[in-house]
Amino acid sequence: MSGPAETAAFVAVDWGTSSFRAWRMAADGTPLAYSRGPEGMLHCASAGFAPVLQRHLEKLGVSGAVPVLICGMAGARQGWVEAPYLTTPSRLDRLHDGAVRVDTAGDVRILPGIAHRDPASPEVMRGEETQILGAIDNGFSGLVCIPGTHSKWVAIEDGSIAGLTTFMTGELFSVITAHTILTHAIDADALPVRPGAAFDEALSAAASGTTELSSALFRLRAAQLLGFEQRADGAARLSGLLIGSEIAGATKRYGRQPLRLLASGDLGALYEHALRHLGFDVVVADAEQTARRGLMKAAAGLWKERFR
Amino acid sequence: MSGPAETAAFVAVDWGTSSFRAWRMAADGTPLAYSRGPEGMLHCASAGFAPVLQRHLEKLGVSGAVPVLICGMAGARQGWVEAPYLTTPSRLDRLHDGAVRVDTAGDVRILPGIAHRDPASPEVMRGEETQILGAIDNGFSGLVCIPGTHSKWVAIEDGSIAGLTTFMTGELFSVITAHTILTHAIDADALPVRPGAAFDEALSAAASGTTELSSALFRLRAAQLLGFEQRADGAARLSGLLIGSEIAGATKRYGRQPLRLLASGDLGALYEHALRHLGFDVVVADAEQTARRGLMKAAAGLWKERFR
Repeated sequence: MSGPAETAAFVAVDWGTSSFRAWRMAADGTPLAYSRGPEGMLHCASAGFAPVLQRHLEKLGVSGAVPVLICGMAGARQGWVEAPYLTTPSRLDRLHDGAVRVDTAGDVRILPGIAHRDPASPEVMRGEETQILGAIDNGFSGLVCIPGTHSKWVAIEDGSIAGLTTFMTGELFSVITAHTILTHAIDADALPVRPGAAFDEALSAAASGTTELSSALFRLRAAQLLGFEQRADGAARLSGLLIGSEIAGATKRYGRQPLRLLASGDLGALYEHALRHLGFDVVVADAEQTARRGLMKAAAGLWKERFR
Repeated sequence: MSGPAETAAFVAVDWGTSSFRAWRMAADGTPLAYSRGPEGMLHCASAGFAPVLQRHLEKLGVSGAVPVLICGMAGARQGWVEAPYLTTPSRLDRLHDGAVRVDTAGDVRILPGIAHRDPASPEVMRGEETQILGAIDNGFSGLVCIPGTHSKWVAIEDGSIAGLTTFMTGELFSVITAHTILTHAIDADALPVRPGAAFDEALSAAASGTTELSSALFRLRAAQLLGFEQRADGAARLSGLLIGSEIAGATKRYGRQPLRLLASGDLGALYEHALRHLGFDVVVADAEQTARRGLMKAAAGLWKERFR
């Protein structure tokens, strides 16, 4: 007769900047229980990490005998315990080799992030590498796009992370909308942005690479002042401009390759539309599931005996 | 025996978004008295424009018999009285033909702004056209750069404004520094930015056009996390990146032409350095004087009898 603790192979934790998600996982990858909260790295940096984990483990009905695998910002320098970046090129199926064990009760480990240590194009990520591990097959070659506050474009060669580029698309959209003269050009009722003619026009113009971002931004305002465009379309045009610039930059850098989009919700639908509109052949994976699947793969590498 | 009021040919007013400056002017262009205050358009839109002007006229010792010529945002739709934009191409020496008379005591007129009514690259300016009038000779052909919150690059053909492009360089620097993850990469003690190796490197990289702004921004942070760059250099690198992008964009659009820089203070020194570093042959005019000189030229066109 085995209780909940015994049926769990491990606990998967996606510990981000501003959120915490944990699953009690069976050996076959089935999630048995789920717990989430707002206790991200920023919260825990002052309030402590161990008590937050303990509270969620209790909610999941897990005893201290079950190992825990964490990905995300909990492994940053300003997190719980630093899990130093692995350096590109970095095999995704060996990601677990970089896991760092936390000096606490039980077996708790944190997966590393990935650094691209090229002085001309330095890059880092932490959490997305685990999502990618969960989303692709071992031998995949191509690009993975993970849109968001800081959109990541990751080049994969035969299951190994070869390089990456971060675009501050989501964060720029937020601060430009909230804090610049374009506040007057954006109608908050038009959020979230949905595909449409205004978005497509701005997207195509930016993706063609003929516009510089900085001057294109002001033209959004001027076009409304002169009656060429409507305020109701401002948010869609700004979004199209930023996403188009992102796709143009990534394409300039990596060319066109097989493409996986890891996204969900409104943002996922918008990026899928944008990529298809620009002629990309894209396969979409639901970003909600990929971190858990990546943690599962890495855990199977770390604790083989628990997954037999 | 003439009092102060009689010695004035007119009163020149530079009425911006957040500042007011006025000069009592002699017929030969000599400023006889000066008054300034924080009562810009934003203040006056609720508090009223006429009382502010009246108060400054009294400080200048000017009677209602002396005409007043205003440039800047007081002529915007949300200003005192709208002085509709003139459309490019627009002769600078006929700018005064677009002045709109205010329905108030005395002869008070507001100069128009300039609009570039091309749906593919719509642009507007209000105030800068008067600065340019004050800074160039009648037959000038070339480019004028006026750096700031919204940097303007204006193409002049034989004394006529042919086109313009606005770069949100200063505003982007402010909001990125204050409101994004790059807050961690910027040392406020390093402001204002001064020329140096970090600035020059970022400037040259951006001006060469090989970087997209959005991804280059995140690399500022990654380079510090990985130890390639110092936080003390973050502000200079961000500034170099934005100014380099601006110069690259303007050069792509207008090519290399005789160039006037209208600027002053730290920002003027930084742009002068940047342009020379990139091989531009630039003539600098002090932006503090140009608005007053432009108002003088326009007033001489409006009230010829007062300048004989």
